[in-house]
Amino acid sequence: MTFVLHPQLAADTALVGDLALCQVRLMDDARYPWLILVPRRAGLRESYQLDEPDRARLWQEADQVAAALARHLNADKMNLAALGNQVPQLHVHCIARFEGDAAWPRPVWGAVAPRPYEAGERRAMLAELRGLLGLTGQGGEG
Amino acid sequence: MTFVLHPQLAADTALVGDLALCQVRLMDDARYPWLILVPRRAGLRESYQLDEPDRARLWQEADQVAAALARHLNADKMNLAALGNQVPQLHVHCIARFEGDAAWPRPVWGAVAPRPYEAGERRAMLAELRGLLGLTGQGGEG
Repeated sequence: MTFVLHPQLAADTALVGDLALCQVRLMDDARYPWLILVPRRAGLRESYQLDEPDRARLWQEADQVAAALARHLNADKMNLAALGNQVPQLHVHCIARFEGDAAWPRPVWGAVAPRPYEAGERRAMLAELRGLLGLTGQGGEG
Repeated sequence: MTFVLHPQLAADTALVGDLALCQVRLMDDARYPWLILVPRRAGLRESYQLDEPDRARLWQEADQVAAALARHLNADKMNLAALGNQVPQLHVHCIARFEGDAAWPRPVWGAVAPRPYEAGERRAMLAELRGLLGLTGQGGEG
């Protein structure tokens, strides 16, 4: 079975680049620096369903991205979450939070309506993230 | 620096038992089977601040608990999350979700008011979880 990104994730995010296991994608919500990590493995919904090297790698990559974002942005808190109640493809949210941001101190989900990036703003954010994480955008996206 | 459980976590949860790294605690909200894993390490707020063996162990324990709960309860989805915007001590939520539960398909935080366990109900849940996870309650709690 080949990995294909879920259409809802494709619609909501733009590709930043690929780590060893995960696609790193930028959520189209300019209220928060909000990345989504999607392991390039097919047919999985839960992190414990990954084989053991991949399971360990998923969280290593999530923590690596969280640490890089936190340092770069001087975030007040990082939020890591694998929820997936609505999109049935394993993915991990990695969100930089700031005191006083749109949902603070609540979780971001469902708090207020998203604000999509403007095109130039998205391009700048993707370039900044690719530089930070040492990634190259691929596949003509972004 | 010695690990001391944050008073807010102590107030909101009951001890299930200790894994190698984490205290496993039951959130006092009978709407969902909701566990909290708290690494017994002092002064940390983010998972990436753990040293590497502990960081890997945290997610291994979280996935182990999630898999056990999911199988035992036949959950529709597990939610794993390290948020900590309000309680500044590193902890990971591990929540069994069911289609039609009080917040479904939204995340559980802030959805509706908690429903505390009744005493007998809590005792039964703690006993069930200790059996499932092979844990012994300690310290006179529970």
